[in-house]
Amino acid sequence: MSRPIVVETVSALREQIRDWRLEGLGIAMVPTMGALHDGHISLVRMALASAERCVVSIFVNPAQFAPTEDLDKYPRQLARDLDRLAEAGAHLAFTPGVAEMYPTDFATRISVGGPSSGLESEFRPSFFDGVATVVAKLFLQAAPDHAIFGEKDYQQLCVVRQLCRDLDLPVDIIGAPTVRDAHGLAMSSRNAYLDEKGLAVARQFNVVLRRTAAALAAGADEAGATAEARQALIEAGFQKVDYVAARESLTLAPWRRDREGRLLAAAWLGTTRLIDNLEIPASM
Amino acid sequence: MSRPIVVETVSALREQIRDWRLEGLGIAMVPTMGALHDGHISLVRMALASAERCVVSIFVNPAQFAPTEDLDKYPRQLARDLDRLAEAGAHLAFTPGVAEMYPTDFATRISVGGPSSGLESEFRPSFFDGVATVVAKLFLQAAPDHAIFGEKDYQQLCVVRQLCRDLDLPVDIIGAPTVRDAHGLAMSSRNAYLDEKGLAVARQFNVVLRRTAAALAAGADEAGATAEARQALIEAGFQKVDYVAARESLTLAPWRRDREGRLLAAAWLGTTRLIDNLEIPASM
Repeated sequence: MSRPIVVETVSALREQIRDWRLEGLGIAMVPTMGALHDGHISLVRMALASAERCVVSIFVNPAQFAPTEDLDKYPRQLARDLDRLAEAGAHLAFTPGVAEMYPTDFATRISVGGPSSGLESEFRPSFFDGVATVVAKLFLQAAPDHAIFGEKDYQQLCVVRQLCRDLDLPVDIIGAPTVRDAHGLAMSSRNAYLDEKGLAVARQFNVVLRRTAAALAAGADEAGATAEARQALIEAGFQKVDYVAARESLTLAPWRRDREGRLLAAAWLGTTRLIDNLEIPASM
Repeated sequence: MSRPIVVETVSALREQIRDWRLEGLGIAMVPTMGALHDGHISLVRMALASAERCVVSIFVNPAQFAPTEDLDKYPRQLARDLDRLAEAGAHLAFTPGVAEMYPTDFATRISVGGPSSGLESEFRPSFFDGVATVVAKLFLQAAPDHAIFGEKDYQQLCVVRQLCRDLDLPVDIIGAPTVRDAHGLAMSSRNAYLDEKGLAVARQFNVVLRRTAAALAAGADEAGATAEARQALIEAGFQKVDYVAARESLTLAPWRRDREGRLLAAAWLGTTRLIDNLEIPASM
């Protein structure tokens, strides 16, 4: 088991990438905020299946947290993350500090419209600007052939695809299926905030969504089914539901029954905000 | 005299660039909106001095025109432009249509703060977003080593430098001195809008700015000197002055006498808006 190379600067990153390019090796990138779990490791495996070298960035990006959000308490555990990356066979960990990514005179913001509208944006207004800006930077720093993003953050995946299309970023975006625990709970670094009781409630999230997606596929009225889902989440123990919404899979425009659909939701358990999403099975 | 290769699509552009890269050739890019004049040709010459291959883009970018501006009447003369590029020795002209640059679902905007504040932005609020977005796209399409921008559009040059720094775009930005006619009038595609009488007035623009810059260097009060310049421009025949302002050369922050300074101005001659700028000579 060999340890990943760890680099903290863009210039060291580029030097290593250039050496690999000279050897003719392809590069796949997995952008993360660390606190790596099995979901991330599945992204690393997909990266290794798509290119000879896998670069994982670990950067808790302040630009995608609002002042009221959990930037300060977001879990940071670099040593453990590097162990996990070594086990998984990642080749390089890029762990820049905030000053490396955002020097003091930094002043640029990328806004992606289209799929960023509504859903998360309604509750986290500057979130996708922060994501788009840091993802563009990471891609320009590492110049990967492929990048792997989890479907867990489904709207983010759509926004990143739109970003690359719109800016002609020559990176192939690969979406990876959500990894779930034995109870169907989607893996998330934020699950670490939950105690046993919270976990038991959280595990109802996917159950409710699965039932709702099936009902929609079977012809249930959209407004009725999503209202029922909100009610069911509250009854399961969630304190607040930000949204439960059916959308068109590719564009995230309002769902039409003749198009592939996706059911997306966000809900609060105490001070922890969870998101999840599922495919709406094709109508029978 | 060999004619430049003309390509209209990003894929054809990338194919040619890749071939040149395989031959080990460096690439310099000159982004333009066409209507090429001696100023542009000087940029092509600087490109040819900095790399083996010179790519000139010709694209009248709708995103940098406000609805009230001169997008429709902006001069378009591709055949003549290609003749001029052939004479100058440019290797490739990239002439995409609007649909190639902005497909119907295009939804991304790049905003650069810092040097974009004030001056042009005050009168053309979405101008630099349009410039930054199209320049990022062009750089990602062509992946040049160097790109040449004229000092004539001085604020734009500063914004492009900031864009590249902030997004880690690996392009070396070269600023080229403004080319002027025998009377000191800065070359501009918009000079084509002027008749003989208008040209005679326009030629006073640089005279007034030169006098003002010299006065500032000699210790004149900034508010007084720029107010006098505005008055002098009106007396010379300009109808309206948008701004005459002294700024710090690198950041475009308010000018401090211990820093390199730049005097920038914009003024209207009928329906034609002209801009110009000059270095403020070091204080004696």
